Amino acid sequence: MLYRPAVSGICAGCGKFCKQGVGMRIALGIEYDGRAFSGWQTQPHGNTVQDKLNQAISRIAGHEITTLAAGRTDAGVHAAMQVVHFDTRTVRPLTAWVRGVNALLPHEVAVVWAREVSDDFHARFSAFSRSYSYFLLTHPVRPCLLAGKVGWYHQQLDVDAMRRAARCLLGQHDFSSFRAAECQAKSPLKHLQQLDISEQGGLIRFDLMADAFLHHMVRNIVGALLYVGKGSLDEAGLQALLAARDRTRAPPTFMPDGLYLTGVGYPAQFALPTQAEPARLALWR
Amino acid sequence: MLYRPAVSGICAGCGKFCKQGVGMRIALGIEYDGRAFSGWQTQPHGNTVQDKLNQAISRIAGHEITTLAAGRTDAGVHAAMQVVHFDTRTVRPLTAWVRGVNALLPHEVAVVWAREVSDDFHARFSAFSRSYSYFLLTHPVRPCLLAGKVGWYHQQLDVDAMRRAARCLLGQHDFSSFRAAECQAKSPLKHLQQLDISEQGGLIRFDLMADAFLHHMVRNIVGALLYVGKGSLDEAGLQALLAARDRTRAPPTFMPDGLYLTGVGYPAQFALPTQAEPARLALWR
Repeated sequence: MLYRPAVSGICAGCGKFCKQGVGMRIALGIEYDGRAFSGWQTQPHGNTVQDKLNQAISRIAGHEITTLAAGRTDAGVHAAMQVVHFDTRTVRPLTAWVRGVNALLPHEVAVVWAREVSDDFHARFSAFSRSYSYFLLTHPVRPCLLAGKVGWYHQQLDVDAMRRAARCLLGQHDFSSFRAAECQAKSPLKHLQQLDISEQGGLIRFDLMADAFLHHMVRNIVGALLYVGKGSLDEAGLQALLAARDRTRAPPTFMPDGLYLTGVGYPAQFALPTQAEPARLALWR
Repeated sequence: MLYRPAVSGICAGCGKFCKQGVGMRIALGIEYDGRAFSGWQTQPHGNTVQDKLNQAISRIAGHEITTLAAGRTDAGVHAAMQVVHFDTRTVRPLTAWVRGVNALLPHEVAVVWAREVSDDFHARFSAFSRSYSYFLLTHPVRPCLLAGKVGWYHQQLDVDAMRRAARCLLGQHDFSSFRAAECQAKSPLKHLQQLDISEQGGLIRFDLMADAFLHHMVRNIVGALLYVGKGSLDEAGLQALLAARDRTRAPPTFMPDGLYLTGVGYPAQFALPTQAEPARLALWR
């Protein structure tokens, strides 16, 4: 690891304060309850996960820092494991970036782990995969203990039909039919490597992994599969929808409540955790 | 079932409005997030589960009703299945007592089922057992996605030692050492029929069943078992504590966050559900 301790904040390389040459790069694993914030990305009103994190870390660092994340989640979307990085010229034990920062964060966001990483690590650009899970309660009565933590549909769904139809989405495709109008991705081509659907006593779990996801892509896929499960769309219909590359023909975006960013894949050289710990999101048990 | 439809609210038996002879008795299965309320029992400020339920049901019934519950839970304690009953002279399909009432309740409380029951059913006095579960996260970082929904201890605990020590609490005992000063129970003698402790990846689950519980009894038992798990109390010490019948010698009451009322046992003749549905509290998976 490139580890250059700061001397009074002065870069050992160039003799003055500079971002490249001073201190170190820290990666953090972050958990948050998306209901409390207006999404990940900083906004003028300041009530975003990034704003809260930047403020807390800046206080521990003793200078202004900015975090960069693996994936920008929307309002209401949770993270069991978001990964961020920041640069600091302040030398602190790693526990300070966990315990110290947590003491300054609202209780809806927490740092779960901290690692020093080399300068060539970038939370967003080094990531080769993102994993999301969606939990959907099918029950005549709205969720209560799990309100805001699971999506909800009031009737049973045909999970086998959903599972069969979902297969056509696997692999590399133009996912324009599942892409929000405001999506900023350069290309609609994404490689969906995993789309598993499991069910236990009325709680359906969707596990998805791709190189990257378009804006609203998971919620739009879950929305379409819900239509399959209730019989409004069949396997061929889903395939035709994918081929149409036309968002206006697809079922509506499903609610954010049950969606969790659960892991980010990085090259092994960075030695970072790739998945959240199940015990911290006991839905997994 | 004793089913006497009301005619303009007039009792078919005595010819005037009376509680005994009119209408029917309804039992409800209730779920709530204890953080939102000042416990179960009605209070002048009105922010209790009972107050919210009484208001919502009274509006659907078209007259004032009062609910009675199987167990009075404290502030912060959840219910995956609380059972209540009320009397009404209004004839409604059972779905009205579920969907209609839910539409009027805050989202932190929900009616999960409704059944008509005979006049000799009483949510509290007919119950022969109550089941509670406590979920405890052992992790260096405070809970975040599960904040308020699990208890927390920052270090690993010796679950085997806890399990061994817990055995001495099974059976009928004077539980004064685990009884809150303000407890109103007539007798400190309770019969603890179940105390199972399981663990999965840092999440510990305690399942308890007894004929009835003293005030704070579950939280006080979990607090004592935590002391066993961290090595501050051994099996003989726990046994001596039980025998002492002295609350002042026991470890402190543990936090309410992880505690759930999960079921109430009634004689089979009433044909009521006895346990909450796991999917609605996915911690069980």
